[in-house]
Amino acid sequence: MVTVIKIGGSLAEERKSLVHLCKELIIFSKNYEIIIVPGGGKFADTVRYLYDKFKLSDEIAHRMAILAMDQYGLLLKDIMKEAILTYSLKDALKASKRRILSIILPSKIMFSLDPLEHSWRVTSDSISAFIASSLKAENLILAKDVDGIFTADPKRNDAKMFKRISASKLLKERFGCIDEFLPRILIEKQLVCYVVNGKHPNRLKSILEDKRDIYTKINPY
Amino acid sequence: MVTVIKIGGSLAEERKSLVHLCKELIIFSKNYEIIIVPGGGKFADTVRYLYDKFKLSDEIAHRMAILAMDQYGLLLKDIMKEAILTYSLKDALKASKRRILSIILPSKIMFSLDPLEHSWRVTSDSISAFIASSLKAENLILAKDVDGIFTADPKRNDAKMFKRISASKLLKERFGCIDEFLPRILIEKQLVCYVVNGKHPNRLKSILEDKRDIYTKINPY
Repeated sequence: MVTVIKIGGSLAEERKSLVHLCKELIIFSKNYEIIIVPGGGKFADTVRYLYDKFKLSDEIAHRMAILAMDQYGLLLKDIMKEAILTYSLKDALKASKRRILSIILPSKIMFSLDPLEHSWRVTSDSISAFIASSLKAENLILAKDVDGIFTADPKRNDAKMFKRISASKLLKERFGCIDEFLPRILIEKQLVCYVVNGKHPNRLKSILEDKRDIYTKINPY
Repeated sequence: MVTVIKIGGSLAEERKSLVHLCKELIIFSKNYEIIIVPGGGKFADTVRYLYDKFKLSDEIAHRMAILAMDQYGLLLKDIMKEAILTYSLKDALKASKRRILSIILPSKIMFSLDPLEHSWRVTSDSISAFIASSLKAENLILAKDVDGIFTADPKRNDAKMFKRISASKLLKERFGCIDEFLPRILIEKQLVCYVVNGKHPNRLKSILEDKRDIYTKINPY
């Protein structure tokens, strides 16, 4: 029962909380089969900036953004010295069976298979879903800097967090915080997905233990 | 007679001048065997920022910075549609013989051979010198956003530009604008190198034509 955890790039905004999350993930990986997929973060922001400035093609920006995920994966490896870094799904699965955390650098997989459309509707959310499905993972956890998916901007008083939501509802209405393409891939691959705040690693643990806590579960229908 | 031209990342600061340079390079490549190596630019700045913030290891930062060169290479390809993008020295040489401009993405070469030290003393200057030497190139041209190597900050009235300078002098004294490791690799590989302002493509042409103009020539002794 493999769980893929995508560590959102926005979590690198606060050094302390990312380092804390990484330490906890190493501990969780002793008891659960966990494979990490990196987000894009500041590296992807730079791609977006130059995409706008130079009016780059979507195809080229897509490749640049995947390299941004590799870069963030390298950063995560530097924090989690015990983890292994790999381009290979097979090696990641082998490591997870031995309860060793692995970080997948997605460039080789994505450049060779090129399974997703080239646009900003596809970000590391969809890419991690594709990788999770290729790994036949049980769950995908998107660790972000928000508590879950909300009905409106979480800063608004009347915003409510979804405990559960269906991917098809997300297809119809946009609630922010996840990329536009993700619901489609969750339905197609029949993958359960959680959106959780990575600043509270105990909430990730609750998901691994199948316990209630503060997060949004996206059901693949 | 292959010439390797490194397009400095700082040239992406002004969209217009980078696009102009790229157009001229396509024209030059009809008459000269030219191979492009990308700099790092804004992508490498992001690496530096996160290197400082997370106190990353030099080894990891080196790998991240090489991926930044790949990203900038992709950007250059998007501007120069006629150019080919390659990871292979052999393919780049083949293209240059047919007077087709190629852009080398250095990641595969650098990750497999790993020939240079992992520190910020090595930047895309040294990496392009290593690649130029591997290609047995005649010359290396570093296209930057400065006219050449100066005795002091070019903004100062008393700063003078070197028309020629020896790599061994650069080893003893630092004059800025090129990385610290470059002179050593120029001597070791016996490679002639030019520093020229990429905002004036005609100056690059002068180097290709072996004519005098505004640039600094670094002799490899």
